[in-house]
Amino acid sequence: MEEMEANQFREFGKAMIDYTAEYLENIRDRRVVPTVEPGYLRPLIPDSAPDKPEKWEDVLKDVERVIMPGVTHWHSPRFHAYFPTANSYPAIVADILSGAIACIGFSWIASPACTELEVVMLDWLGKALGLPEEFLASSGGKGGGVIQGTASEATLVALLGAKAKAIAKAKKDYPQMKESEIIDKLVGYTSSQSHSSVERAGLLGGVKLRSIQPDESNRLRGEAVEKAIKEDREAGLIPFYCVATLGTTSSCTFDRLDEIGPVCNGNNVWLHVDAAYAGSAFICPEFRYLMKGIERADSFNFNPHKWLLVNFDCSAMWLKDPSWLVNAFNVDPLYLQHAQQGSAPDYRHWQIPLGRRFRSLKLWFVLRLYGIETLQAHIRKHIALAHYFEKLMRTDHRFEITEEVIMGLVCFRLVGPNETNEVLLKKINGRGLIHLVPSKIRDTYFLRLAICSRYTEERDIDVSWKEVKEAADEVLSEIKQ
Amino acid sequence: MEEMEANQFREFGKAMIDYTAEYLENIRDRRVVPTVEPGYLRPLIPDSAPDKPEKWEDVLKDVERVIMPGVTHWHSPRFHAYFPTANSYPAIVADILSGAIACIGFSWIASPACTELEVVMLDWLGKALGLPEEFLASSGGKGGGVIQGTASEATLVALLGAKAKAIAKAKKDYPQMKESEIIDKLVGYTSSQSHSSVERAGLLGGVKLRSIQPDESNRLRGEAVEKAIKEDREAGLIPFYCVATLGTTSSCTFDRLDEIGPVCNGNNVWLHVDAAYAGSAFICPEFRYLMKGIERADSFNFNPHKWLLVNFDCSAMWLKDPSWLVNAFNVDPLYLQHAQQGSAPDYRHWQIPLGRRFRSLKLWFVLRLYGIETLQAHIRKHIALAHYFEKLMRTDHRFEITEEVIMGLVCFRLVGPNETNEVLLKKINGRGLIHLVPSKIRDTYFLRLAICSRYTEERDIDVSWKEVKEAADEVLSEIKQ
Repeated sequence: MEEMEANQFREFGKAMIDYTAEYLENIRDRRVVPTVEPGYLRPLIPDSAPDKPEKWEDVLKDVERVIMPGVTHWHSPRFHAYFPTANSYPAIVADILSGAIACIGFSWIASPACTELEVVMLDWLGKALGLPEEFLASSGGKGGGVIQGTASEATLVALLGAKAKAIAKAKKDYPQMKESEIIDKLVGYTSSQSHSSVERAGLLGGVKLRSIQPDESNRLRGEAVEKAIKEDREAGLIPFYCVATLGTTSSCTFDRLDEIGPVCNGNNVWLHVDAAYAGSAFICPEFRYLMKGIERADSFNFNPHKWLLVNFDCSAMWLKDPSWLVNAFNVDPLYLQHAQQGSAPDYRHWQIPLGRRFRSLKLWFVLRLYGIETLQAHIRKHIALAHYFEKLMRTDHRFEITEEVIMGLVCFRLVGPNETNEVLLKKINGRGLIHLVPSKIRDTYFLRLAICSRYTEERDIDVSWKEVKEAADEVLSEIKQ
Repeated sequence: MEEMEANQFREFGKAMIDYTAEYLENIRDRRVVPTVEPGYLRPLIPDSAPDKPEKWEDVLKDVERVIMPGVTHWHSPRFHAYFPTANSYPAIVADILSGAIACIGFSWIASPACTELEVVMLDWLGKALGLPEEFLASSGGKGGGVIQGTASEATLVALLGAKAKAIAKAKKDYPQMKESEIIDKLVGYTSSQSHSSVERAGLLGGVKLRSIQPDESNRLRGEAVEKAIKEDREAGLIPFYCVATLGTTSSCTFDRLDEIGPVCNGNNVWLHVDAAYAGSAFICPEFRYLMKGIERADSFNFNPHKWLLVNFDCSAMWLKDPSWLVNAFNVDPLYLQHAQQGSAPDYRHWQIPLGRRFRSLKLWFVLRLYGIETLQAHIRKHIALAHYFEKLMRTDHRFEITEEVIMGLVCFRLVGPNETNEVLLKKINGRGLIHLVPSKIRDTYFLRLAICSRYTEERDIDVSWKEVKEAADEVLSEIKQ
């Protein structure tokens, strides 16, 4: 076979390492959002795969010709959309090793190192965040952590665990009730400000999720959850699950975990904490006040692949009692059984898919090659840059900052109607130098500027601010005309 | 910050490329399954993450000290367990690029290249397999492909699409029926030989899945499905979903798609085809007779990450009408909307998670750097090696081959009771030279020998056969004593 052999791989792999370094070190120079139209790519390449092997040099050349014109550069300092997604050199190298070993760690025996490094890395990470002992495998209790693909999956997995637990309890409490009737009575709670994936988890899990209005500061409060639970109980429903968000997607606000926790605990409601973005900040002790009450939670999740320099996918989830999950999903054919079952986790029972990559290598490499102090510095720098943008904007009274800046996100708008701000966003994204996305809370439309890149410096924020200001100048002068 | 900078990355990355080549080229020399006990890893590393950055040289050293002693080497020619998982040099290099770009392709605008290359690569792949036009985006119809993480997710996603479609129809047919009553009446079908993830999809999706007995050759037949559907209709249930397997996990048998298809089509039952392992073989025209009737399916899935040299995760799924999925899961917050919505797929609606990596790069690199002919040669070689093992075994009348060898799997046992074969498997795995897992069909326990590694040659099969024979000698002589 004329396939790529080891020597060609050494050449191609090293050329790609160099390409990666070049790409990332000079990413500031690329247009952040491409100008291509839907369908741009198909005419650039053949209609079907080649019969014969091509040269790696030709494939590498096509990266600039075919791919890069259509890439939105998430790691450019000019990218301020959504939330950050992580990218770091240590994680990229770890993924090469993961690809080399290429084991499928669905059970302990399928590659013991894959399971065991994950158990210990989730302990390292949990300790670095100051999570309560009960969540850690090192405590010797039931608790422990697992790497999920995304926060969406963690929310769904927690919901399914909560559902299994609630069904088991209801079957005891109401032995005459059919399971479908029980499921029909289950109701979960979340804030109207929680991530879209929470609503989706309810759809996927086939249970009602009630959307509760947060307070005027956009925080879900204990009293509101308690009131909803009481109403639902009186209506004959079975409250079973609640998602609290630490750092919402729209505006990075923090639900009042310290109030919600006791309400959930007192009502047999599984409390899941979604800290997808902001959770990384708890690596800095000065931000842990924002997770006050975490000891009341049943499950906690955040994404090192967002803000802790571990490339996607690496969503860290801890559970106090994973047995509800394990038992809910336990389908155990002979070909997956092994002699050591029970003495180490078989992570396939903790997740939706069966297969799983060796993702804990990324955590190990990142934690060791940066060290906690560098990771703390990364978080602090992003937050300082958000405050720097805030400071610049506060000098211009045409703008209002719509939400307290706590993490690396600034929510703002031009004082005035939504329409002006919609035009402003279009203008900014149309100019193409920086990229933002909008959001809306209680009919107020605003723009979100997230600090995303690990390359972002004050001078980049100066550029972004200048760009926002100039776009505003244009918009406002057009309105006057 | 003392973090890893570009120059160190160039050194470390290239060292890891060399390590990868060394590891894979010499993998034959490593013990296939480790001898470690559960808990082996924790004492080898510190209790918590370091505060200060470590040197990359020290991290690389620890790969041999900490990780390798606990690795099950899935790419060793001595590994015959489960089914193969793919590993190739082109895919590893593509993943470096994917890590460098590190976009999150949840919508078209989030990185147009990420979505568009995936659309076209699924067309390339679908054409290479000879899938009907209706499944391809290039046909200009509704159909198209998507990369899922695993076949488990594809099965679940298809089930959820089928469920949404069935609920919509039932609401029209029985306007007085509550949704929970409809769901309670839904019933799906699959063979008792289908993968454990199918049963799990039913659990996760909250619907009944009926397990149907296959024929004496372990194939699900049209008549049996028809009978079950008829019975269930008479009992007032609503048949909605059927999973047919091409290449079962236990014994790599093929359900009779040509019979099942018309039955499903005639009964408004969504037919999903799970060809997770064997689907790769359809790249060779001579094996396409095994997917006769594929034009009747609503969705089709196989894993290039199993047998087509694309590293995990890359599970290819095609749907004739993805709109049922898209509408079922469509939660569309402002921060994810964009101006080009509708003119290109937003793949977040096609899957369980929100986030997604740039995985189509792996497909592109593999298809170009191997070419179709090399991939065909890879499949044919594995199948030939399975037949070679079969031939060797047929010379020894102590053994029986329990299933027709069609792909790269040989199912066998010592003539005699199950217990002897359980002892045989323990003996083989205990000797540690090769690794197998067992299965059981209708109370007959047997051993599975899968050809997994792309490094496997006839001389490796000679070693494996010698090992099986010697283990059998030992077992049978122990029994006589």
